[in-house]
Amino acid sequence: MASSILSDCSSARLLPLRRALLPQRAPRIRPCPALASPRRLLIAARPQLFPRPPRMDSVPTAAAAASSAESATASADASAKVIDGKLVAKQVREEIAVEVTKMKDAIGIVPGLAVILVGSRKDSQTYVRNKKKACEAVGIKSYEVNLPEDSSEEEVIKHISGFNSDPSVHGILVQLPLPRHMNDENILNAVSIEKDVDGFHPLNIGRLAMQGRDPFFVPCTPKGCMELLHRYGVEIKGKRAVVIGRSNIVGMPAALLLQKANATVSIVHSQTKNPEQITRQADIVIAAVGVANLVRGNWIKPGAAIIDVGINPVDDPESPRGYRLVGDVCYEEASKVAGAITPVPGGVGPMTIAMLLSNTLESAKRIHKFK
Amino acid sequence: MASSILSDCSSARLLPLRRALLPQRAPRIRPCPALASPRRLLIAARPQLFPRPPRMDSVPTAAAAASSAESATASADASAKVIDGKLVAKQVREEIAVEVTKMKDAIGIVPGLAVILVGSRKDSQTYVRNKKKACEAVGIKSYEVNLPEDSSEEEVIKHISGFNSDPSVHGILVQLPLPRHMNDENILNAVSIEKDVDGFHPLNIGRLAMQGRDPFFVPCTPKGCMELLHRYGVEIKGKRAVVIGRSNIVGMPAALLLQKANATVSIVHSQTKNPEQITRQADIVIAAVGVANLVRGNWIKPGAAIIDVGINPVDDPESPRGYRLVGDVCYEEASKVAGAITPVPGGVGPMTIAMLLSNTLESAKRIHKFK
Repeated sequence: MASSILSDCSSARLLPLRRALLPQRAPRIRPCPALASPRRLLIAARPQLFPRPPRMDSVPTAAAAASSAESATASADASAKVIDGKLVAKQVREEIAVEVTKMKDAIGIVPGLAVILVGSRKDSQTYVRNKKKACEAVGIKSYEVNLPEDSSEEEVIKHISGFNSDPSVHGILVQLPLPRHMNDENILNAVSIEKDVDGFHPLNIGRLAMQGRDPFFVPCTPKGCMELLHRYGVEIKGKRAVVIGRSNIVGMPAALLLQKANATVSIVHSQTKNPEQITRQADIVIAAVGVANLVRGNWIKPGAAIIDVGINPVDDPESPRGYRLVGDVCYEEASKVAGAITPVPGGVGPMTIAMLLSNTLESAKRIHKFK
Repeated sequence: MASSILSDCSSARLLPLRRALLPQRAPRIRPCPALASPRRLLIAARPQLFPRPPRMDSVPTAAAAASSAESATASADASAKVIDGKLVAKQVREEIAVEVTKMKDAIGIVPGLAVILVGSRKDSQTYVRNKKKACEAVGIKSYEVNLPEDSSEEEVIKHISGFNSDPSVHGILVQLPLPRHMNDENILNAVSIEKDVDGFHPLNIGRLAMQGRDPFFVPCTPKGCMELLHRYGVEIKGKRAVVIGRSNIVGMPAALLLQKANATVSIVHSQTKNPEQITRQADIVIAAVGVANLVRGNWIKPGAAIIDVGINPVDDPESPRGYRLVGDVCYEEASKVAGAITPVPGGVGPMTIAMLLSNTLESAKRIHKFK
């Protein structure tokens, strides 16, 4: 189940993106020690948090760290700090729960998130169920609409319009992928900009790109990446950052966010001729390209902070499922060079839903002018 | 007069931008041979066009090239090709004039551009007058509203709304800067997205940033930079590009355009620690930071294409005006290293108004479904 949560980039379709961003003529899976001997990956290292995570309200207990370490995958001799997304996501959810209670007590308003699911894809159903559960756990009210696969665009838009004008709904999310006969753009554009908690609306992206403007919402996965960097005290201003991948839902907004935080940003993509050389200059790397183990140890500047957004299934006959999940970064190699790194799973994955909850809370606060 | 046209980045205010982008503690004017001996700059070199400008409909005549050379500033031993913006802008305007006539003959529609000027700044009046003249020269009808300095936001917006619903107006431009008591964002957002020929609306910028989306309009100055690269046959796909400066009206959209054209883009700004090292990796440099002669010869990769958007007045007692205009790039040094370079003046400057006319024509074509 966890893997299902992790492979969902908010409500976005990951697989087609992966295909779109694949470097031409590059092998789908790169040879990497972690792939040659998958079992070595399973020696879990205890994640070491940076000494002073600046925005952490409470220092994680040893028990919590040990528990979260179960999902961290690192070789025993790794030198990088593990950026523990599972732990940070838990903290974020706890902070949200406190805020939700405060808001309810003060003004009687409960934040509400509406999710629209069209069709009956098993993976989409799982994502929607997980979002619902996550909402319940922090006290956010969730609303769900399930429409049959053969619904018309008009029907979906009718439901969106209903939620747009429903004062108890503060965030609206259309689970992607939509059935092929629908135009994603038409449907996503129908979501009111004030309730677009996914942050995918072009107006939001434009405001994200512009100096002196702020988006209503920051897309969840890139927001999660930035939250991890902030909470682990990684300095961004004046640093070189490389984003690998330029998707609308992760790479591009991540680059805009890093730039807004005053990093010097380069975007590496499928047409880039010497990605390893450029990546090696970066103090911060966000990899979001969907190619297993693309980023090798020798791509990484010693001491760099590595945020690995990729979640790629690779064959593993020793796993009960027959596969396991690896990132875009060859963890075993990278963790020996980097200063800090997110594991896969247990890195960026858990942050996405946490940021969706954060956006929903933020929306409710803004609409009701609650600080 | 020419200098006034050139220092206008479409309808945008240049000076505050310049201040905003100024590197901290950097001297306002960098020492550069061109500054030490201004007269050496005045030895005009005959611009050499690239052998096969791919989108040029007609090869420029020697006479035209010689005439445009008058504005080109290059040292006699420069090896770079001169990217002659004055010549290209002339060609673009001629192409637009042909299209305008075609459209009028076919469907009886004349493209219309409305310009709103608030207050009585001399420079703004000059820019508006130049835009009006440029429209007339290609057959675009121009509409002008002059409002007093103490007008209210509501009055300005009332005029914008009028133009929004006027079918003979296809482009609306609010001349900046607006008086201090007005909120630029409120006013610019009132311009209908279908008529925002400046392309500054966040929705336009968002669509520019996103893969699979196209903006209604590309901001004029960055569009002019790309047009120069295209017309001079500079390959962009797979090349390293560095944009110096990240303003909303030039640097940021220029970076998005280069990325859309599949360059690997890095953005250098006031917080960048080693700008020369990063710039030296670039096959294409767009400098738009507003610091005279910031980019020295040793910042440039041999053979790179250099587009200099900066227009900076520097003292020159030998000039009748007491000053002359130089770019962000030390032309004398750079032209010995680069493969191609825009002069200042006579490079990007003349392209901005040409692109405004192009956007207005494009808008009229789109609204009236004329191809």
